[in-house]
This record gives sequence, structure tokens and C-alpha cells, in this order.
Amino acid sequence: MTTDKEQYKVHKEPFYQAQGKEVVLYEAAYAARLPVMVKGPTGCGKSRFVEYMAWKLGKPLITVACNEDMTASDLVGRYLLEANGTRWLDGPLTTAARIGAICYLDEIVEARQDTTVVIHPLTDHRRTLPLDKKGELIEAHPDFQLVISYNPGYQSLMKDLKQSTKQRFTAFDFDYPEATLETQIIARETGLDEATSAKLVKIGQTARNLKGHGLDEGISTRLIVYAATLIKNGVDPKDACRMAMARPITDDSDIRATLDHAIDATFA
Amino acid sequence: MTTDKEQYKVHKEPFYQAQGKEVVLYEAAYAARLPVMVKGPTGCGKSRFVEYMAWKLGKPLITVACNEDMTASDLVGRYLLEANGTRWLDGPLTTAARIGAICYLDEIVEARQDTTVVIHPLTDHRRTLPLDKKGELIEAHPDFQLVISYNPGYQSLMKDLKQSTKQRFTAFDFDYPEATLETQIIARETGLDEATSAKLVKIGQTARNLKGHGLDEGISTRLIVYAATLIKNGVDPKDACRMAMARPITDDSDIRATLDHAIDATFA
Amino acid sequence: MTTDKEQYKVHKEPFYQAQGKEVVLYEAAYAARLPVMVKGPTGCGKSRFVEYMAWKLGKPLITVACNEDMTASDLVGRYLLEANGTRWLDGPLTTAARIGAICYLDEIVEARQDTTVVIHPLTDHRRTLPLDKKGELIEAHPDFQLVISYNPGYQSLMKDLKQSTKQRFTAFDFDYPEATLETQIIARETGLDEATSAKLVKIGQTARNLKGHGLDEGISTRLIVYAATLIKNGVDPKDACRMAMARPITDDSDIRATLDHAIDATFA
Amino acid sequence: MTTDKEQYKVHKEPFYQAQGKEVVLYEAAYAARLPVMVKGPTGCGKSRFVEYMAWKLGKPLITVACNEDMTASDLVGRYLLEANGTRWLDGPLTTAARIGAICYLDEIVEARQDTTVVIHPLTDHRRTLPLDKKGELIEAHPDFQLVISYNPGYQSLMKDLKQSTKQRFTAFDFDYPEATLETQIIARETGLDEATSAKLVKIGQTARNLKGHGLDEGISTRLIVYAATLIKNGVDPKDACRMAMARPITDDSDIRATLDHAIDATFA
Amino acid sequence: MTTDKEQYKVHKEPFYQAQGKEVVLYEAAYAARLPVMVKGPTGCGKSRFVEYMAWKLGKPLITVACNEDMTASDLVGRYLLEANGTRWLDGPLTTAARIGAICYLDEIVEARQDTTVVIHPLTDHRRTLPLDKKGELIEAHPDFQLVISYNPGYQSLMKDLKQSTKQRFTAFDFDYPEATLETQIIARETGLDEATSAKLVKIGQTARNLKGHGLDEGISTRLIVYAATLIKNGVDPKDACRMAMARPITDDSDIRATLDHAIDATFA
Amino acid sequence: MTTDKEQYKVHKEPFYQAQGKEVVLYEAAYAARLPVMVKGPTGCGKSRFVEYMAWKLGKPLITVACNEDMTASDLVGRYLLEANGTRWLDGPLTTAARIGAICYLDEIVEARQDTTVVIHPLTDHRRTLPLDKKGELIEAHPDFQLVISYNPGYQSLMKDLKQSTKQRFTAFDFDYPEATLETQIIARETGLDEATSAKLVKIGQTARNLKGHGLDEGISTRLIVYAATLIKNGVDPKDACRMAMARPITDDSDIRATLDHAIDATFA
Repeated sequence: MTTDKEQYKVHKEPFYQAQGKEVVLYEAAYAARLPVMVKGPTGCGKSRFVEYMAWKLGKPLITVACNEDMTASDLVGRYLLEANGTRWLDGPLTTAARIGAICYLDEIVEARQDTTVVIHPLTDHRRTLPLDKKGELIEAHPDFQLVISYNPGYQSLMKDLKQSTKQRFTAFDFDYPEATLETQIIARETGLDEATSAKLVKIGQTARNLKGHGLDEGISTRLIVYAATLIKNGVDPKDACRMAMARPITDDSDIRATLDHAIDATFA
Repeated sequence: MTTDKEQYKVHKEPFYQAQGKEVVLYEAAYAARLPVMVKGPTGCGKSRFVEYMAWKLGKPLITVACNEDMTASDLVGRYLLEANGTRWLDGPLTTAARIGAICYLDEIVEARQDTTVVIHPLTDHRRTLPLDKKGELIEAHPDFQLVISYNPGYQSLMKDLKQSTKQRFTAFDFDYPEATLETQIIARETGLDEATSAKLVKIGQTARNLKGHGLDEGISTRLIVYAATLIKNGVDPKDACRMAMARPITDDSDIRATLDHAIDATFA
Repeated sequence: MTTDKEQYKVHKEPFYQAQGKEVVLYEAAYAARLPVMVKGPTGCGKSRFVEYMAWKLGKPLITVACNEDMTASDLVGRYLLEANGTRWLDGPLTTAARIGAICYLDEIVEARQDTTVVIHPLTDHRRTLPLDKKGELIEAHPDFQLVISYNPGYQSLMKDLKQSTKQRFTAFDFDYPEATLETQIIARETGLDEATSAKLVKIGQTARNLKGHGLDEGISTRLIVYAATLIKNGVDPKDACRMAMARPITDDSDIRATLDHAIDATFA
Repeated sequence: MTTDKEQYKVHKEPFYQAQGKEVVLYEAAYAARLPVMVKGPTGCGKSRFVEYMAWKLGKPLITVACNEDMTASDLVGRYLLEANGTRWLDGPLTTAARIGAICYLDEIVEARQDTTVVIHPLTDHRRTLPLDKKGELIEAHPDFQLVISYNPGYQSLMKDLKQSTKQRFTAFDFDYPEATLETQIIARETGLDEATSAKLVKIGQTARNLKGHGLDEGISTRLIVYAATLIKNGVDPKDACRMAMARPITDDSDIRATLDHAIDATFA
Repeated sequence: MTTDKEQYKVHKEPFYQAQGKEVVLYEAAYAARLPVMVKGPTGCGKSRFVEYMAWKLGKPLITVACNEDMTASDLVGRYLLEANGTRWLDGPLTTAARIGAICYLDEIVEARQDTTVVIHPLTDHRRTLPLDKKGELIEAHPDFQLVISYNPGYQSLMKDLKQSTKQRFTAFDFDYPEATLETQIIARETGLDEATSAKLVKIGQTARNLKGHGLDEGISTRLIVYAATLIKNGVDPKDACRMAMARPITDDSDIRATLDHAIDATFA
Repeated sequence: MTTDKEQYKVHKEPFYQAQGKEVVLYEAAYAARLPVMVKGPTGCGKSRFVEYMAWKLGKPLITVACNEDMTASDLVGRYLLEANGTRWLDGPLTTAARIGAICYLDEIVEARQDTTVVIHPLTDHRRTLPLDKKGELIEAHPDFQLVISYNPGYQSLMKDLKQSTKQRFTAFDFDYPEATLETQIIARETGLDEATSAKLVKIGQTARNLKGHGLDEGISTRLIVYAATLIKNGVDPKDACRMAMARPITDDSDIRATLDHAIDATFA
């Protein structure tokens, strides 16, 4: 693994619209190198926020999409068989600890417990990462920080972070942006006019109100951006909304009817 | 892996009969490189549609039949042991991202979660694929697009896409073609006369009406094509229908009696 | 793997007694290279039929006994470590696709889903087999055909073919031969006189009537052949029947008493 | 694997006392090379019988103790990595098929299904063993025969042979020998006097009567031989019986009291 | 693995405030090399205590964070493939036994049973560690001691130490420090004034009282330190408390309201 | 694996106090090389007894702590990859069979079934160990004997030895020593005076009476030895008893109160 710090830098300012004090508070957490947990529903901008902070702080960012088949070795590293025997290959967490990157473990709750336990010594006063298989104890680079994301809506008895993990993080709550802000985001990101953008946001909010009444999750800002993009590319607004905002999220005919009705009413 | 772009091109126009605006809408989605989810029952032509679009757009197509034993490495790639040590072998998703192909993940819901999570960074503004095991971050080729298929009838609590995955796609609904169109498809694809083709389609529709009343799925267009092919090859229509349209889909004697009755009545 | 076509040819005509139109219908299916599913209970002659058809058509036959630990790699192939690095080894399905053999997957329902999904592209208009791990896309030889066997009695919620797999096959129903035919089969295959053979068949039918009333399956033709063989070798008919037709299939004392009674009555 | 036929020969006549016609019937089954299933409770002499028959027929015997972690490869063989690449290593079943041994799969029901399916082509008219991973199809040596053991008392819904496996075997029932015969066996095998041997057998029968009333299995002949051996070595009969016949089989205090009472009464 | 003893020494005195006689009692246990189990809730200072004792005793400390995917090999060691064949690599437990370190298995109850059984011979009069795979029997260095941590709140039927493991340890109970002591700890560790520290501790105690009434665990001292650190770095106390003491531990709106109320009341 | 017989010899007489005729009876079992099962609760001295017998008989002893992740290969051996190809490495059971050691499988019931089945041919008249993967059949050395331990308190439907395994062993029952004997053991092993030792034993018996009334197991002799050791090292008896005899075995506050009361009353 080329531990070239530069390749992990975020070179272009990501588009990010602050919703509250989160930028200042994150900077305070980073200043003390406290681990951070960003909480919120799917597609509300958690990953974008972390990318933005990495850019703002000028630190490399290493993102890992966690999943239930990921092992601790996938994070920490493994021996690789080569012509001259084995070679140790740092995993993304190890690389981040060495070069002083912000390591962002996305959807940590999906990972198996060994993945979550492995981060413990990096998140207390030790700030170390023992590579048991290599017999090496890494002291984290002073710039290293650990960030994880967490979707409270997915919590279940089977899949939740252990308290001994949770209690190692400071936490931020995120939610979908409120209407005016979200309209601006849509308009700026896609170039669609504000009036149409506002209509899309209104449909999105209708869907979000259905959460818990037949929908597991509301419609993310991302899907509204998809719809806006299609309209910008010449697709009829109703077709665009159906294709980007209704069809992907549900097959329930009642919910679909409600969404289609909202779409037709909005673009009547 | 020979990443020879040409080998993935669809050189001959696949037979495809549009059912609605899907061709135009797909083109709009592709223009913005939005990820696409094609939804619909078994054998209604989802794969054929994607193949057709790849041909129409002149883009290479890489198809992966997903299954529950498929790992993220099967998609992304792995190290291969060789005489001079290990060599990295790109998986089909990585190849598609490099050469700018349409990557079609068939029956994505069958795959394990690590397979579905691995596509996330390819489906948002990042359009990247981190090869964690290789320490490489691939930026997708401008022509790359991700398409997945999804059969809503198979949805279950155990096997469904996560909302955080669903909300990364625009979606199309597919269904069996309506009778006139399906008759034309049968006739054109097999060379059977339209009258007999229409009879087969009628039997097929009888079976589709049994869906939910003893049949898990209706009879696909493919099975009707099978029956037509057998008749064209000289098999008695009743034998052909039993062999291609009744025997494969059920062992329930009541359903069989209903289907056999429909066959006998149609070819009396 | 020596892909020597000849080693897979069936050189001697297998003993096969047709029960209906199955030979002609199979030939029609093969002529159009339609995939075939042979359905029926244990030991009714499904495998023998496929072997016979391969002999009649003069095509190589590659048989794979499926099981729940079989992986897709067992069918498709894998890399083998050698002195000079790795060498690809075709699996039986790949070999069949390359040399134009009939590939017979016995008891497909036992296999894991990845095994069944892997055959999909070989069973539709594509007739291809993607070797993802090798980066090769095989176009099936024009003579290639896929045949699977399926025992409806074993169907369960846990283990059944997916509709998306079933709907890729034409299907034949098989059952135990009726009495006169089965008597001829026993006599011809073992050289036992027809009178004694008929008695054995009668006992077999008694057992088949117990199916669902304490027996999971009836007695197969194979077991009747076993009994006939033992009698031919000088074993007392009652001992032969007990040893070949009663003891193997049940430990239930009531069922055993019923079977023993039938044996004693028949050979009184 | 040295396929030295001689190493698998049973050179010394094993002590075996026939209980009925089993020797003659086995010879008839072997003459026709019919597969054999020996059924019966723990320690009633099934393995000893097979060993005796191998000695009597002068054929090599390869015994495999089946278990739930045994894979098909453990039976069939596997590639072994060596200095000059990989070398194929025949498994015990393959060796038996090649050299013409009797292959005895002990407690087959413990094995996973892939192990049981792998024997199918060896147990019908084909008498072949396909080594899929090697691309070789072995025709069994004319002397090869397959024997399996099966304990009906262990049958459960989870672990039972499939009918498609059962229906490939002729079967023998075994049970503990009746008292006079068992007394002779004990006396001859251990050199203990017949009077004391008879007393031990009587205690054994008491225990067997408790089967189903607190004991899962009766006391095997083997445990009676243990007790006799200890007595022959100078241990007090009551201590010997407790140590060899009561303590090993149960921790239930009521059953222990009953057994201890029988022991004390017999050796009062 | 560099078994450099020095790298495992704790070179700087860790900040540790004794709660009772635990330091003296630990020294007595270490003097007799008795294995030690430290019990207590998340974040009460168990790991810190062990680190402190290692520093006080001047012994190397090897810490292993246990997890459910850890195998015995992860503790004991494994063979590593190298250019000149395989090389044995000691695991952390083996290293500790060789160099005479205190081996601290953190959250042992998370580990699989093979991990817990492997420590048995090291915890009785034998003080040995058999490396079965290497054929070596290690006698523990005279300075070696085994320490495990255990959180009684996590005990469940599925995950608990076996009595045969528990009965190999002397045990200490830990709990959160009482208020005055905890205030001092906060103040000394973060440099925050005692008055504000006391307020934070008071909020922490409110949360601890909610344990069992909607909270699985109380707030750890660590989280209070986080809050104090943020305040020291200029964050508003209410924001700091929300971010470090409320948001990480719960998403329940009632509990959050209670905690927020306590925060607002304290810093009104 | 160095099969150096001497390294497995027990060179120093282990401290062992006989409870009954077990030494003489074991000698008789060993004389006939009968397999032995030692039964009893945790920490009652089973392992110590086996070690003592190995010393008395002057035979090497190879102990294996069984666990649920142990495979048959861990016992029997495996191929090891080396520079010049693979090398076979005997497992502990194979080593014991070759050099004529007593092989002691501790807590056999924890092991997976393949581990228990693998010992079968070593425990009947054959006294052989087939190394299937190596194609070698080992005849056990005349001095070889197999010993297993078994804790009846752990028996459950899920984890119990199969009768076909149990019926291959003679068995001894062990229990905690009665009070006078245990007092002597404590005093001799730790050097503590008999009066204090007796007090500790009395507390231990209180705890044993709680077995089944809130405690899964009584307090083992080992824990009493721990308490005595701590007292000998200057720890206050009440602290020593709490730390060694109460804290390790339970977190139930009622049981703790009962035990603490007994401790305080005894050392009032």
C-alpha cells in the first residue's frame, strides 16, 4: 500500500451547507483528537460532512464502507504471499494511524464485532493499534482521528454497537436539511431553478412523513438530486420523480399511490 | 484478466420490443450516469433490456449473476498466487469501472451485504472504488454506469436491499408484456405463426392469473418461447405446452389440472 | 483436465425401456438445445434415461452429483497452484460447455444457490458461461445442453429451486414403470425368470402403496433388481427380499411387519 | 498414498461368532458386488463382522470413521502442494476403488451430505467415481465393494440418510448376541471362566432392559469384555462391573442404583 | 515478532487513583503469580488499573482486545509462509509467557471458547502453554501473569465464562469512582476547574441512575473526561455535555430529554 | 515435532492424595490398556490424578485441552508447507500413539464430534489410528493409553458424548475430597497452618452446598488453595476469601451475601 499521504487528501472543496454548529464543534473535537460518531438517516449528508471537514482541516481522509463480512484483518492488514515469502500489507485503519489521516468507518454497525473491538485502543488515552499478527504496536500519528457513522433507524437487538464502543465517541446528530436549505442545496448542486427544486423538496417531505407509516426511511437528499438532474437533462418532471423518488424506495402499492398522487399534484 | 473493451461489447442488436418510455428514460439516466435499478418478475426481459441499451449506447456490458456465496472479492478482485509471487486480478466490477463499461449486477438481492456495500462509493458523487486490499482508489471511467436488477416478488425480511442501497438508484418497473405485444415477440423470435403464438400467450396469461393462488410466479415469456420453439420443431402443441409451460413450474396436482385444462381447451 | 471428448462418450447402449414419448420429446428439446429438467422419485430411472439419450444422440455426457457443500467453483473451475505459478482448471460444467457435452446436474436442488445461479447465462439466449475469476466469457459449443434432475418429493421451503431457475427448463415427469414393464426390466436386466420377477414387482408395489403412510419413498426399481440378483445368485427369495427390499428402507417395526407379511405371502 | 494392497489385508482371522445367516448372505451380496449396509446398536459387532468378512474373502479392507466435519475431499482426495507444484493424493474411497478393496464407511450418518452423495455413482450400475477436481473418471476395480454402518437408534429428523442413498444398499440387521452366545464370546475373548462370564452377561442384559427407560443404549458386548478383562487382571468383580459397565454409560443416580443393585446381587 | 521486552514496558506512570485496597491486593496476587480477573462496567478504569500495576511492578504488559472472531491461533501463534518455507510466529500470549510479561486479555467473555480453554494450563500449577501445532511445551517465565477483564453486565446465557475458567482466577470488583474522587480525576486529567468538574460528575451520576430504566450502561468516566476536554477547548458546557455525554449513549427521546434537562439545570 | 519421549515424562512426583481405590484400579486398567474416563466437577483434581498416574507408571503424558474449535487435524496432524514442499506434522494424539504415551484429552465433551470419532479405532481391539490424509495406518505403541475427562454437570442435549464413544471407556468418579483430607491438602500444598486451612475448607463446603441453589458449581479445591496462598502472603483472611473464593464465582448479590456472611462468621 502506497502510504502516499497526498492521495488521501480532499483536493477540491466538497459542496457542504452547514445545518447548525456542527463545523465548529467538530473542530473542537478534532483539536482534542476525540473520536467522533456522526448519527443520522440514510443520505442526509453524513459522509459529505466528514469529507468537508477533512478538506477544511487539510487532513487526509481514508473512508471504509463497513459490512458484515469485513474482518478485523480488512481494517488492520494482513500478510501477503510474495515471491520472496510474505509481505505485510497495512489495512486502511493502520495506514490512517501511520500517516495521520482521519479514518472514517462508514456504517460501522454493519461490521462484525472484531472490527469494532479493534478500534478500542485507538480511541482511548493509549491511541495505539496493536498489530498482533505482526508483533508491532503502532502509536497513532498526532493528526490521526477516528470517525464513525451510525444510523439510529437501523438499531436492532442483533445489530447495535456495544456500550463499550459507544462510550468511546463524542456524537453529532444529523437529519435531513429543513426545506429552504434543502431547496438551495438541490438548486446549487444541479443547476435546476429554485422553484422546481422547491417542488421536489416538498415531495420529498411528503415521503418523509410516511416514515414509520409504511416506509422504513424517508427520501434522501440524494434521490431529490437525482430527480433534479433528470429534469435538467430534459426528462418530464413527473417521470423524473417517479423514477428517482418513488420507484426506488418502495413496491407497496398504497405508498406508491400516495407518492404518485403527491407528484401529480405538485406538477399538475 | 484481459480488459479488452471489445470483448464486452454487444455486437449484434438484441431483439428487444419496448413496452413504454423505458429506452428514453434509460438514456437520460445514462447521460447523467445515474445508477439504475430494473425491477420486475422472473423472465420479463430485464436482462434483455440492459443488453439492448448497452448495444444502443455502444458501451461494453459486464454482467454478473449475483448469488449468496459471492463475496466482495468476487466483484472487486483478488491477489492471485503466481510463480513470481502474487498478482492482482481485477474483478468484473473493477474492470467495468476501469474500461467504462455498464456493469450489470443481476439479482443483486441474492448477494451478501458486503457485495452491496462495495458498490456504494461508485454510486454517489465520489464515483470511486477503493481496492482496500491493494491500497488503490479507482476513479470510475466517465462511461461507467452501474445497473442492478431486483425482483420485488422475492422481497422478504431476510433478503431485501438496505434502504441505504436502494436510495442510490433510479428505478424502472418492468412486467410481462401485454398480450398483443407478447404475441408479436413470440412470433418474431421463434417464427411460429401469430395465431398459434396468441394461443400460447393466452395460456401464459391463465397461469399468471394463478400467481398468488398456488403459483409463486407467473409463466415467463421465456417459457412461452420454449413452447413455441418445440411446436416449430414438430412437437404436438399440447405436449409442448405441458413440457415447457406446466411441468417446469409446479408439482401441485390442482394447479397442474387447471393448466392442463387450459392447454386442452386452447388446442382442442 | 483432459478435455478428451471421447472419455465422456457413452460407448455401450445402456439398457433403457421407454415409458412413453420421452425419447422423442427429449430429441425435440435437444434439437432446439432447450435445457431439460427430469423430475421423479428416487431410483425410477432418471439418470439411466439421460445416459441413454446421450448414447442415442452420440454426444458426450458429463454427470455431476450435486450436494450442499458444492460451490460454484466446483462446477466452473478454479486456479491450481503449480510449480510455475497457478494454472486454471476447468470444472465439469466448463468442460461440457467447451467440448459440447450434455451436462447432467444430478439432484440439483441439493446444491447451494451459487451453483444454480451459475447456470443461468447458459440457459437463456446468451448460452454463455462467464468465468469471472479468469476474466473469460465462454460461448457454449453448439452441441452443449444442460440437463438437471429434480425429485419433487424432496421439495421443502428450505430447499427448492428458485422460480427464476425453474423457468429456464422444459420438464419431463418420470415415475416407476407400470407392473408389466417393470417385470420385463427386472427379467432382462438380471436374467431371472419372468414369474419370479413379477412376484418381486408385486412386493415392490405393496411398498409403494405405503408411501405417505409410514414410508417416505416407495421401493425403487433398483432395489427390486438387487433382490432379483441375489435370488439369481442362489439366495432364498424371502431372505433376498428382506435384505434388498425391506431392511434398507425402514426401521419402523409396523412397516417391516407389513413388508415381511407381503414377502412371506408372495413366496409362501 | 502408498496404494500397497497388502497393507490393507486383514492378516489374522478376527474372532467372530456368527449370529445367523449373515456370513452366507454377505458372500452372496459380495459375489454380485452389491453395496451393503450393516445396521445395529453401538458395540454389537458390526465393525468386527466386516473385518471378518474381509479376512474370509481375502480382500483388502479400508475403514473410514465418518464424522460431521468430514468433507467429500477427505474421501475422494485432494491436491497437495509440493516443491514441484501440486500432487494429487487419493483419498481412502478412491484408493479402495482403485485397488479393489472393501471400503467400510463407519457411522455414515454422521457425515455431511456431500460425503454421502459422492458414493452414489459407485453404488449403481456405473460403478464409477468421478474425480471432478482432477478431471478423471475412475472405473471401480472388479473387487471393490462399498459397506456402510448405520445405527437406527441415532436416526433423527436432522441426521438420517436420504432415501436416495438408502435405496442403493442391501441391508443386514445386527443386535447384541443372545445370552449363551455372548457368554461364550466373553469367555473365549478374555479367558475368564464361563460361570463368571455368564454373570456379567446377565448384568449386561439387565442394563439392556433399561434402554428406553432412562438409558439411551444398552451395554455393549465391548463393555462386558472390559469388565471380564479387569476381573482377569485381579480386580474385584463388583469394582470391575461398576468401572466398566455402570460408570461409563450413565450419571443418573436412579439408573446407577439399579445397576449397582444388579451387580451386588449377582456377585453377592 | 520482536520479543523485545522493553517495547512492552509501561515507561510513564499512568494516571491512576486507587479506590480501595486493590493495589495492595493485586501485589499479593502477583507475588504468588495468581491469575487475576478484574470485573466491572464499561469505562470504570479496569484497563488503566492493569496498566498502572504493570508500571508499578516494572513488568512488561501485553494487552489483547478479545473478540468473537479471535481464534486460539491469534493468541498462541501460527506458522507463516516465507521464502524458505514456513516460520513460526509467536502470538501475544506466547510472547508474554516467554518474556515474563503480564498478559491482559481484555473482555475475555467476547472470545470464543477455544481462546479461553487455551489459557487453562497457564493458570494452574503447571504454568505451561502447549503449542500443539509446533510440538513445543512452553514453561511460563517466572514473571508471567495472566489478567482478564470481565463486565458482569454483559453476562448472558450465551456468553459467559465457563466455571472451569472462572475458578482459575482471583477476582477484583471495580465500579465508577464515588463523586469526590471522580471529580478529582476529571480535574487532574483535563485541567478543568474542580467546580465545573463536579457539575459534570453530577450529570454523570444522573445518567448512572437511569441504568436499568432505559439505559444499558451508565456514563463512563471516559465520557465525562471528553466533556471536560471539550469545555477546556472552549466549547459551551451544554454543547459539550450533549455531544460527549448524551448523544453517544442513547437515541431514546425520553432518556435524551431527561439527560438534556439535567444538563440544562446544571449549567443554567 | 520432536517426538522426544523424555520431554513428556513427568519428572517430579506431583502432589496427589488418593481418595479411594482409584490408584489401584487405574493400574489394572492400564495393565490391560483399557481406555479410561475420569469424571467429576471442575477443579476436583482429575488432571492432577492423571499426571500422578503417569509419573507412577513412568510413562510420558501428553495433555490436550479440548475445545469446540478443535478439529480432528489438531489431534491427528496435518501437512505443513515448507521450502521443499509439504511436510507432515504429527498431532499430539499421533505422537502419543507412536511413542507410547498416555494421551489425556481434557474436557473431551467440548470438542467437535470429529475429534471424538477419531479416537474410536484407538479404543477398541484394533488400537490403530488411520492417518487418512497421509495414507498411513499407525499401530499404537504397546504403552499407549487414552484417558479422557468428563464433567457430568456440563451434560446437555447439545453437548454430550455419544454412547458409541462412552462405551469405549472404563470410568472413575471423582468428587471434592472430604473435609479432613481437603484440609491436609490445603495445608501441605500451601504451608498454611491446619487450623486456618480447616476454616477455608469449611467456607468452601458452604459454597458447595449452594450448588443448584444459585451456584452452577461449588468452589474448587484450587480456589481454596488460592485463598490459603494469599493468606500465607500476608493478605487478611477475609480479603483473601472474598478475592479467591467469592468474587470469581458469582455476581449474584444474594449468593455473595451468603458467602460473605460465611467468611465473616468464620474469621470473626
